[in-house]
Amino acid sequence: MTIELINTGSELLLGRVLNTHQQWICRQLADHGYTVQRQVAVPDGGDAIQQAVREGLERADLVITTGGLGPTCDDLTRDRIAELLGRPLQFDGTIESHIRKFFESRGRPVPVRTRVETLVPEGAEVWMNAHGTAPGLAMEVPADSQRPGGRASRLVLLPGPPRELRPMFLQQALPAIHRWFPHEEAFVCRTLKTTGLGESLMEERIGGPLQPLIASGLDLGFCARVGEVDVRFTARGAGAGALVAEAEAIARRLVGDTIFGEQDDRLEEVVIREFAALGRTLAIAESCTGGHLTNRLTNVPGASAVLLAGFVTYANQAKIDALGVPEALLAAHGAVSEPVARAMAEGARRVTGADFAVATTGIAGPGGGTAEKPVGTVYIAVAGPLGIEVQRRLNTFDRETFKFTTCQQAMALLRFQARLVPE
Amino acid sequence: MTIELINTGSELLLGRVLNTHQQWICRQLADHGYTVQRQVAVPDGGDAIQQAVREGLERADLVITTGGLGPTCDDLTRDRIAELLGRPLQFDGTIESHIRKFFESRGRPVPVRTRVETLVPEGAEVWMNAHGTAPGLAMEVPADSQRPGGRASRLVLLPGPPRELRPMFLQQALPAIHRWFPHEEAFVCRTLKTTGLGESLMEERIGGPLQPLIASGLDLGFCARVGEVDVRFTARGAGAGALVAEAEAIARRLVGDTIFGEQDDRLEEVVIREFAALGRTLAIAESCTGGHLTNRLTNVPGASAVLLAGFVTYANQAKIDALGVPEALLAAHGAVSEPVARAMAEGARRVTGADFAVATTGIAGPGGGTAEKPVGTVYIAVAGPLGIEVQRRLNTFDRETFKFTTCQQAMALLRFQARLVPE
Repeated sequence: MTIELINTGSELLLGRVLNTHQQWICRQLADHGYTVQRQVAVPDGGDAIQQAVREGLERADLVITTGGLGPTCDDLTRDRIAELLGRPLQFDGTIESHIRKFFESRGRPVPVRTRVETLVPEGAEVWMNAHGTAPGLAMEVPADSQRPGGRASRLVLLPGPPRELRPMFLQQALPAIHRWFPHEEAFVCRTLKTTGLGESLMEERIGGPLQPLIASGLDLGFCARVGEVDVRFTARGAGAGALVAEAEAIARRLVGDTIFGEQDDRLEEVVIREFAALGRTLAIAESCTGGHLTNRLTNVPGASAVLLAGFVTYANQAKIDALGVPEALLAAHGAVSEPVARAMAEGARRVTGADFAVATTGIAGPGGGTAEKPVGTVYIAVAGPLGIEVQRRLNTFDRETFKFTTCQQAMALLRFQARLVPE
Repeated sequence: MTIELINTGSELLLGRVLNTHQQWICRQLADHGYTVQRQVAVPDGGDAIQQAVREGLERADLVITTGGLGPTCDDLTRDRIAELLGRPLQFDGTIESHIRKFFESRGRPVPVRTRVETLVPEGAEVWMNAHGTAPGLAMEVPADSQRPGGRASRLVLLPGPPRELRPMFLQQALPAIHRWFPHEEAFVCRTLKTTGLGESLMEERIGGPLQPLIASGLDLGFCARVGEVDVRFTARGAGAGALVAEAEAIARRLVGDTIFGEQDDRLEEVVIREFAALGRTLAIAESCTGGHLTNRLTNVPGASAVLLAGFVTYANQAKIDALGVPEALLAAHGAVSEPVARAMAEGARRVTGADFAVATTGIAGPGGGTAEKPVGTVYIAVAGPLGIEVQRRLNTFDRETFKFTTCQQAMALLRFQARLVPE
């Protein structure tokens, strides 16, 4: 079974926006056992859309388009595809009533232009848009019209805005795709999120022990991200679930300390979730990471129940004033040092009364390195009820990657220390 | 003149990574007067690459591929394109010497596998890779081989890693494209970065006054981002430079207070640059933005000369302890209030001795709103040598967008206040 994805939008070809639909849709399909063979982006002009859809239907069992279903003059996807397939557009009263309710509930009049959204190519299935007005459309294209001698294709038209497209894809498109193209055998996919080991070290640790399962049909994949590696297990067939479960058990036994979550978990979400569950509080003292850690943790809804305060003590004087780091310590060891990291974490814990405190001090670069402490040197400290642990790391990356990676390490150390303390 | 971009990489079709090449290359080309008509992503399998390149050459004057030039077994672009065009691969000694020097300078042995990178399709131009080993390749494909009756096409093969691709594109590919496809007339493009006005308000303010220039050939484009709108002027022909300069002058007169930079400037870079130039110092007190502002400012190299400290005073007690916000003020007005924002900015300026301080306090959501202060309510305060200004805003977005937008407003207010103070 072959799938092609067509993203419409002149802004994509002008490089004004990133094509996030491509990654998101491809990822969803892959995690459900379907792989996209080709993705195409074309501008809003109707000819390019018609050409891309015609070519897609000649090759693929399923063609998915995104964008161009809205009410403005550059939204041509619906019209030009109806024209391509020779299907007249027909008024659909249920869409009109959906649009009317959508605007009524927001206390706004129905814009005249939304009228085009009530038009449906003959024979198309309509998927109401739970977060907008333009419905999704699905149709079967018989073999003889576009793929002489081939099989019939399915064509799915999705709206462009991500907050409309994503729920529609998950709740309407995916179930339909499973119905149209059922897997001949079970398909199981599981992604473990890890931090602390690079891709090749991770492969070295688990690749060998997983060989027998791979020989039995397990597919093992790695995806290296900044400060993280995703480990992905997939399998097909009757024993797929057991195979993936066994692989996960082996990975948890061998590298369990690096696994912080599953699927799309973010490390900061896991930290907040674990701390909130135990009613624990946290304070942060950042120097070189400059607020990155505090910012990520406060991105998580509910962070305010956990995080008491964050201090970005960039200047030495701020370390002294806000955290009570002794001036003599700074003079003797320098701001980037084990004793100062320790004093920062201790100070943040003391002045806030938090259960745990985490501190970072290092050289983010590009300037400021020395032979003894090159750019990328960083000390990470965690203070808790059982004492203080300090780690020295060397993260030689550009400035933003340095900050991200250091914060991954800080959160990993924080979780490690927190798990040592009885609930 | 038509351009097609082909991105190779199975990870793209599996949705493991975002296709940042698409946006970056399309943007560069558009800003130099060239527009991409179609972008295609195909997996690493050689057949898909051959098919996409064959189709691209049939349609386009210029086909650019990315990825698949490296030394591993899934790097098939070079081989399969040489095969498609019937050009034997020939050893190139200058590439071998480049690769040897590359590894020598890093004190590492030359991996045997890099040998394939020294092979060049007959007649191809070689672009040495300043940041890696695999060279870029450029060739002319005569009309008769792929486009019967048409013009010859140009084919450009670029390496996949962004830190290799981007310099090569700017320093080698773009000049070649200008040489192969010279503009018949001058092309001028200029982007102004703005914050503080939405896209439609911006259009309302400058669209009318720019009409005469648009009638003379000016092209006016807007790109709405979170908390920002890019205003893009382009023109062609003898008077292009004057036309764009006149348009910019009009925009600066009408909405100059919203313009913070040009091209790819980031607001946080502009703030640090302006403060550093005048030797001014800054302190930050964040509640609802949770470290976002401090994090963005510390992403800018040299921020340590400007930023003394950032306080993320999430809990009320932290506002009292770290910033000296009076407990009575919190009790009387609540943490999200004009007086508390004012006291936070005042406190941050006082305890750090900074020239300026900026403070945010609001309700990021999703919970915590009331009828009087709904989710999205935020107070932004700036304290400086001339006094304190506080603004109330309503930013009803998801949590991360709320933080970004609020920080845009905070930086805009900070720049406004800073400019009132004589140098």
